[in-house]
Amino acid sequence: MAVKPVPGAVDAQAFYAGLDRFNVRPLWRQPGLLPDEPQSKASPHVWRYQELREQLLRAGAVIDAEEAERRVLMLVNPGLDGLAAATANLYAGLQLVLPGEVAPAHRHAASALRFVIEGSGAYTAVNGERQIMEPGDLVLTPNWAWHDHGNESDGPMIWLDGLDLPMINSLEANFFDRSSESSQELTRPDNASRHLYTGRLSPTWETWSEPYSPVFGYPWAETERALDDLAATGVGSATDGVLLEYINPRTGGPVLPTLGCRIQSLSPGRHTAAHRHTASAVYHVVRGRGASVVGGETLEWRQHDTFAVPGWAVHEHVNGSDDDVAVLFSFTDEPVLRALGYLREETAERQT
Amino acid sequence: MAVKPVPGAVDAQAFYAGLDRFNVRPLWRQPGLLPDEPQSKASPHVWRYQELREQLLRAGAVIDAEEAERRVLMLVNPGLDGLAAATANLYAGLQLVLPGEVAPAHRHAASALRFVIEGSGAYTAVNGERQIMEPGDLVLTPNWAWHDHGNESDGPMIWLDGLDLPMINSLEANFFDRSSESSQELTRPDNASRHLYTGRLSPTWETWSEPYSPVFGYPWAETERALDDLAATGVGSATDGVLLEYINPRTGGPVLPTLGCRIQSLSPGRHTAAHRHTASAVYHVVRGRGASVVGGETLEWRQHDTFAVPGWAVHEHVNGSDDDVAVLFSFTDEPVLRALGYLREETAERQT
Amino acid sequence: MAVKPVPGAVDAQAFYAGLDRFNVRPLWRQPGLLPDEPQSKASPHVWRYQELREQLLRAGAVIDAEEAERRVLMLVNPGLDGLAAATANLYAGLQLVLPGEVAPAHRHAASALRFVIEGSGAYTAVNGERQIMEPGDLVLTPNWAWHDHGNESDGPMIWLDGLDLPMINSLEANFFDRSSESSQELTRPDNASRHLYTGRLSPTWETWSEPYSPVFGYPWAETERALDDLAATGVGSATDGVLLEYINPRTGGPVLPTLGCRIQSLSPGRHTAAHRHTASAVYHVVRGRGASVVGGETLEWRQHDTFAVPGWAVHEHVNGSDDDVAVLFSFTDEPVLRALGYLREETAERQT
Amino acid sequence: MAVKPVPGAVDAQAFYAGLDRFNVRPLWRQPGLLPDEPQSKASPHVWRYQELREQLLRAGAVIDAEEAERRVLMLVNPGLDGLAAATANLYAGLQLVLPGEVAPAHRHAASALRFVIEGSGAYTAVNGERQIMEPGDLVLTPNWAWHDHGNESDGPMIWLDGLDLPMINSLEANFFDRSSESSQELTRPDNASRHLYTGRLSPTWETWSEPYSPVFGYPWAETERALDDLAATGVGSATDGVLLEYINPRTGGPVLPTLGCRIQSLSPGRHTAAHRHTASAVYHVVRGRGASVVGGETLEWRQHDTFAVPGWAVHEHVNGSDDDVAVLFSFTDEPVLRALGYLREETAERQT
Repeated sequence: MAVKPVPGAVDAQAFYAGLDRFNVRPLWRQPGLLPDEPQSKASPHVWRYQELREQLLRAGAVIDAEEAERRVLMLVNPGLDGLAAATANLYAGLQLVLPGEVAPAHRHAASALRFVIEGSGAYTAVNGERQIMEPGDLVLTPNWAWHDHGNESDGPMIWLDGLDLPMINSLEANFFDRSSESSQELTRPDNASRHLYTGRLSPTWETWSEPYSPVFGYPWAETERALDDLAATGVGSATDGVLLEYINPRTGGPVLPTLGCRIQSLSPGRHTAAHRHTASAVYHVVRGRGASVVGGETLEWRQHDTFAVPGWAVHEHVNGSDDDVAVLFSFTDEPVLRALGYLREETAERQT
Repeated sequence: MAVKPVPGAVDAQAFYAGLDRFNVRPLWRQPGLLPDEPQSKASPHVWRYQELREQLLRAGAVIDAEEAERRVLMLVNPGLDGLAAATANLYAGLQLVLPGEVAPAHRHAASALRFVIEGSGAYTAVNGERQIMEPGDLVLTPNWAWHDHGNESDGPMIWLDGLDLPMINSLEANFFDRSSESSQELTRPDNASRHLYTGRLSPTWETWSEPYSPVFGYPWAETERALDDLAATGVGSATDGVLLEYINPRTGGPVLPTLGCRIQSLSPGRHTAAHRHTASAVYHVVRGRGASVVGGETLEWRQHDTFAVPGWAVHEHVNGSDDDVAVLFSFTDEPVLRALGYLREETAERQT
Repeated sequence: MAVKPVPGAVDAQAFYAGLDRFNVRPLWRQPGLLPDEPQSKASPHVWRYQELREQLLRAGAVIDAEEAERRVLMLVNPGLDGLAAATANLYAGLQLVLPGEVAPAHRHAASALRFVIEGSGAYTAVNGERQIMEPGDLVLTPNWAWHDHGNESDGPMIWLDGLDLPMINSLEANFFDRSSESSQELTRPDNASRHLYTGRLSPTWETWSEPYSPVFGYPWAETERALDDLAATGVGSATDGVLLEYINPRTGGPVLPTLGCRIQSLSPGRHTAAHRHTASAVYHVVRGRGASVVGGETLEWRQHDTFAVPGWAVHEHVNGSDDDVAVLFSFTDEPVLRALGYLREETAERQT
Repeated sequence: MAVKPVPGAVDAQAFYAGLDRFNVRPLWRQPGLLPDEPQSKASPHVWRYQELREQLLRAGAVIDAEEAERRVLMLVNPGLDGLAAATANLYAGLQLVLPGEVAPAHRHAASALRFVIEGSGAYTAVNGERQIMEPGDLVLTPNWAWHDHGNESDGPMIWLDGLDLPMINSLEANFFDRSSESSQELTRPDNASRHLYTGRLSPTWETWSEPYSPVFGYPWAETERALDDLAATGVGSATDGVLLEYINPRTGGPVLPTLGCRIQSLSPGRHTAAHRHTASAVYHVVRGRGASVVGGETLEWRQHDTFAVPGWAVHEHVNGSDDDVAVLFSFTDEPVLRALGYLREETAERQT
């Protein structure tokens, strides 16, 4: 082998121009391949419920019956070049289901969740059981689980959809399957799974080998009671107040292998300490009003707004009321970053 | 709430045109967001060593000393729009280090491996110990571990670099750090970790909490002996022949949390059964010649060639010799897909 | 080496007699060292609450103040030669605490639980928080956790103690430590842990590395509601009806590493299928009356009775009422047998 | 309920005398149920190979053919009241198999290991493959795995048996099963498992769900090389020198769920620091001479001797030679104590 290349013996321009046909590129001319730290392409952003709700209702007037199955306004982060993504890894959308509408059974490899914003009594059927949906309920439609939904109530139903779509699509691992049946066969009573697994007690006769929670619905009444029980005790973290993780009762871990779900309360007037982590999150305001300072930008929010906190963006939350608790639901890609050894967190200087 | 939108009451065109300013998009007009199955943007592709080696040597003549630290030709998959990626999730590159050259210590969140192609006696230092590199050796430079290298031999050294860069960059979780020292302090004898952990025996006095293997070098002499011991016994899988996974002795799992490494032998004349899986892989031909049929395309390969098998592409391997074993090294994103619940595999019809 | 011993060259009797001084024994003369299957030394047995309660109260009249800290009648299995054990591996006792009495803080390596039979309002303090005890509550005093108790109510308190004492003593791994303080410092509100971990929700700011549940009290009100929710649905196992395991919310597994705790309801008239398993159990009748057939022996039981089912004993349960549900609490060594690879179960012919 | 027992109202003697018929006992009169720390009933003890070897050979002359299958001298700890146990939880025995002898296939729930002392070329067949036995080899006959052995060599074979018998019998979980076939069918080549799993490499096509190692034989040649590689480097622990654990390549943990196996070298003249732990161990001297001070007692040992270190006994090891390394094999119940949360260790003052 010629171990001593003679500098100048090769014409540089010709050399670089010729590399393309070998499908290679010189690393030494690729700055930025290894950034010092993540600089998310996603922007801190808030979507106003008041605006989106109006558009959702208008959508009802412009789309036909079949399209109505997917009457979802996808939240598109302004930094992500039109990608259907709220943060680099997370998808969010607002879905409206009108009385009498149904969506046929389907499933996908992507993991999904629904957090109910408005309406009462519609259902999502998952794995043979219907979750009757009330405001504040969290419903899971996990990885490859059949699901369909319908609104048998006499009012409209609006929920927030959360998925790991950007990530699973980037990993090129998504699948989709539509059932030949319009709705799946129901094999268990409504809300059965939440009674089988209370969290404190698990059925000894059920085996479970899926990577996701066997509980498909987490009712708001319980969630609220848990928040109330803790509110007065002063517990919580400096950066997040009372931040509780929804749990897979089979593992004690997150409810979905790729998405963690959380509920959080900020006491009146609370301004949390700043920090950042590689995980990104989509927040939904269940109750209250306030602001989050994210990457130097102040996102003001009120009830039912949704906002995005990109990965590695410094952020802090402020409850804007001196009288009332603010409650935030959020979902995050933290389980992914943790599983792959990529989770990193650090405290930061307050930005305001 | 107006629960009965009147069809036609809203002008559709105006409606759609107006959505952009709310940073939302209608899901019902987004076909392909949920594909029936993965359709990788990456192409099946083979990079010829004979060609690349020549270019690598020419590179020596056109770049200066500082650039020489990163004298790597990145393998760019023709389907991936110029992304520095061999498959959607995997990076591969060929690096040349000439006698006397050193690369200063640095570390990155991305996980990396080196598989030695040519040369003998250069070193990669990781976590305080030097791995002396011989052809066929696998060397790990894991997630956030300091590493530097140098060639103290009198011949050139060429190795294959493998990283999870496309994935970690897509997840926006990469970090990079350059040491103020040109090379790290050596705290253990050369090749120490491979003696501390033989695989059959582990040191009781060492604690280990990293998610990657405590062994930083897997010597070829051992790997070859393992293949030889099994070659005659007829064991192996229909789809892959004798396919062995390099193991983290602390867990029995893959050596890196995001990358699995494998060595594989195909007996003379062997044509494996076809299958596909969501995991993608980069293969390197250690010995022999043959072909792999990938997604309907035949990739002919000979010693030291590198080829890419995209995720979910049907593939089968053919040893082109009736006399000699063919040996393939490969690395894969399978650990990621498994950890996230995205791994899927199925057998397929043979394509040829 | 003399490879051909000459039969008869050695006097057998002298040989055997001489072995003792070398501290060896001939395996070939040790029948029964490896039994075909377990034959528990423990007997199926029921302890009548009516009788024991009377003795407990009489105990109050014969013991002094210091002894009163340990006013426990240990349930001694008649088959176990006076060992303080209800089954080979499990200890059970009935404890009476009178108004005003306190027990000073102590801890032990053995894992322990308390199931409240009578009385209301006494406390067990564990790890800095008091569990206020009501009938049907399960309270944990885990491995090496400081605990003390007191009865500040105006009535007596009786509970069932369950421990892994026979096992840990046999393994020679028990430790005991008495605090210099009569009671431990309280660092959290009463019942705090049950609010921090509802089972469905876990605090993100709490780290936990103990092998036992971070919840020290499982209130009866919740347990009863869970049973009620499931009673009407017809779920459950053939051998055990609705049998629910108390869960460590950090792992989804048993509450203590060595003891599993369960609550079980048998519908009116239910006669379960027979089975046996290497795990043994101590049952306590929370409500109802009936019988269990254990190893061919019929154990009639009524409310508050306690009975032992030895390991590998065939057993089946009968609710003796055609109108009312029967509810059984039990604790078992199943987690131990499972962890060691010793758990085995099989169905059996009904014995009656 | 009578909440105020009147002291003296009950005759104490009559009370205590009457408790037996209720199968209860007063805890307050049971000192020692909860000891401050473990006080093993087992004694520190050494069994001399020279003596035992002679007795084993004599045994050949006194027992008949059928008994010869079990020609084992069990090591009986003098403190354990004649129990077939070397420590409270561990069984050890020396087995002699003469040329031409075979033992029919059987299996037991108890986990077992064999460490070869003398002889070459006999086999133990496990799970369809024969382990050809050489001095220093470790052979596993795990939980419920069929095994049989035979000596087809022309010399006698002596090995050390190690089992978890005292523990599994105390837990009442042992089973035994004798095959109708005198030897099991061989489905794999001799020593196959050690080639399938080198420790560094594992077969991707093999699934494995047993709790024990898929490798049934750990050859001495490898073990010795590992010790030699480390001997000169000065690594190791203060209390144990170079102490290596035999590894289950599927988990990185101990080879059997209840027994850990270790090899250890003490450099010339080495006197280790003292410590104690709840785990007990049986040591076998592979090479060298020296002494271990255990619980204040000095156990002198030389090649092939076996000695017992009871749980929680302070111990330290001394290599009696200033020129040669001493090598000790040991097996321990540590995996059990760790799994149950009972493992505790502390350093101690040197005893000599």
